[in-house]
Amino acid sequence: MNKMSQVNTKNTGVSVIGLGQMGSALVKAFLTKGYSTTVWNRSPEKAKDLVAQGAVYTPDVEEAVATNSLVVICVLDYQAVHEILDTVGSTLSNRTLVNLTNGTPEQARLLKERVTQLGVEYLDGGIMAVPSLITRSEAVLLYSGSQKAFEMHRQALDSLGTSKYLGTDSGLAALNDLALLSGMYGMFGGFIHSVALVRSEKVNATEFTSELLIPWLHAMMTTLPKMAQMIDSGDYKTKDANLEMQASLDTIGDVSRAQGISTELTDPIFSLMQRRVADGHGDDDFPSVIELLRQSTN
Amino acid sequence: MNKMSQVNTKNTGVSVIGLGQMGSALVKAFLTKGYSTTVWNRSPEKAKDLVAQGAVYTPDVEEAVATNSLVVICVLDYQAVHEILDTVGSTLSNRTLVNLTNGTPEQARLLKERVTQLGVEYLDGGIMAVPSLITRSEAVLLYSGSQKAFEMHRQALDSLGTSKYLGTDSGLAALNDLALLSGMYGMFGGFIHSVALVRSEKVNATEFTSELLIPWLHAMMTTLPKMAQMIDSGDYKTKDANLEMQASLDTIGDVSRAQGISTELTDPIFSLMQRRVADGHGDDDFPSVIELLRQSTN
Repeated sequence: MNKMSQVNTKNTGVSVIGLGQMGSALVKAFLTKGYSTTVWNRSPEKAKDLVAQGAVYTPDVEEAVATNSLVVICVLDYQAVHEILDTVGSTLSNRTLVNLTNGTPEQARLLKERVTQLGVEYLDGGIMAVPSLITRSEAVLLYSGSQKAFEMHRQALDSLGTSKYLGTDSGLAALNDLALLSGMYGMFGGFIHSVALVRSEKVNATEFTSELLIPWLHAMMTTLPKMAQMIDSGDYKTKDANLEMQASLDTIGDVSRAQGISTELTDPIFSLMQRRVADGHGDDDFPSVIELLRQSTN
Repeated sequence: MNKMSQVNTKNTGVSVIGLGQMGSALVKAFLTKGYSTTVWNRSPEKAKDLVAQGAVYTPDVEEAVATNSLVVICVLDYQAVHEILDTVGSTLSNRTLVNLTNGTPEQARLLKERVTQLGVEYLDGGIMAVPSLITRSEAVLLYSGSQKAFEMHRQALDSLGTSKYLGTDSGLAALNDLALLSGMYGMFGGFIHSVALVRSEKVNATEFTSELLIPWLHAMMTTLPKMAQMIDSGDYKTKDANLEMQASLDTIGDVSRAQGISTELTDPIFSLMQRRVADGHGDDDFPSVIELLRQSTN
């Protein structure tokens, strides 16, 4: 009873290479939406649960790639991707490769170059979600590269979460992925410092976070689009609190030190504001500090 | 025609000392809600518009304080507060002083000590809003100190925005105020780095911010209460991405440098994660890094 004989390789099948936590979540999502799903993993035991749920396992990665016109790869790193491609060779030709492996824009561009020579449509992706969120609309998946591939396989990709196509440059998904992560770490760093500060006076962190911090961050988040417009236009004029007013007193630093809290997370932004004031931009609004992040070493 | 004769000094009147942008916004809010409002400012010309709107101006700060049992002060800094108190002397006795001047928890506690000796009910406040937001529910005002004062004048204070009482320690409002600001600057720093990164490839910042970053930050914000609980309990066990996984690759740093973007805003959080892993806590979840912010110098 070979399930592969039932597969319509043009539209209803997908091959998934790599069955880590994320790869397995992708397979389950495809199966749930009725896609015939062929799977491969270096160590076969990870396929067992998925086969029980309807996936077809093959120990031969070349066969896995051959089975469907849509091949999704999600492995540890780009080295693993390239090793698998060495094995698969020209079998990938005329297929679509959707690469959801974490990496850099440069790695995505080099991989696109490699597979394009085989006549492959290459789509790079960044998954903005933990595995347990896959299939839910909150799971955002960023794609860049072949627009043709994105449009052709949009329905299958939408099984995984909310699909966002960012452009033909295959590096854009990884770039935006890393940008979003850096935004997240900034917010998380601010959270850690703020909680350290209130806990220095035995304030309950859970209550502070839910009742004060989260509503406050929501309110402050509404100012970001205006700041982004300033950055796009390069016009940082303000009638509100300018950089000089914001940077004149480092009360956060002073009080943190007095409470025995390290200022390593808050110092860098104050340093940027103070340097921007020293450079003669004290009248600018806050987002003007971005000019100091752009270095000449590009 | 002396308006002061109409004032019920017990419940319907308030004196506001300090008519900067914020002080003036407070006066307008009180007037709008029908409170007889007596105002004083070092330079009298700032009172003109407010008098036209119904405020009573007196050039004598002692008289301003004498007029009402509720006295709100909002001046440049604590030095100005203390100088005004030197002038006012015992006239403040048996009144409520609500101090909305920016400062530190220590300054609030020392001021409370000073005025309590005069039989004053002292309430310290932190305004989490720009002047133009005053009166709106999004304007959150944090109070700490005399609970009696807060309850007695709650209705008047609610004219200014959403009132939150944090406890009898008069330093709590300033501490929470600074904690919220540090949380905001963390988020703003993350925003600046993320936008610098996408703009290095000519991505439109406004579009990126509205379509990707803000929804993403909203989603990530939902993880903060769980993190706060971990911090309260000191139990950092996780089944998701642990610190070692998060800190093993500094792809954000590598790609930022490759794109010519300074990593000064993102390095500190990675340094914390890496040091926490080096200290043997690689299995912990992210919020475990807070342990490194607590210094021994308290």
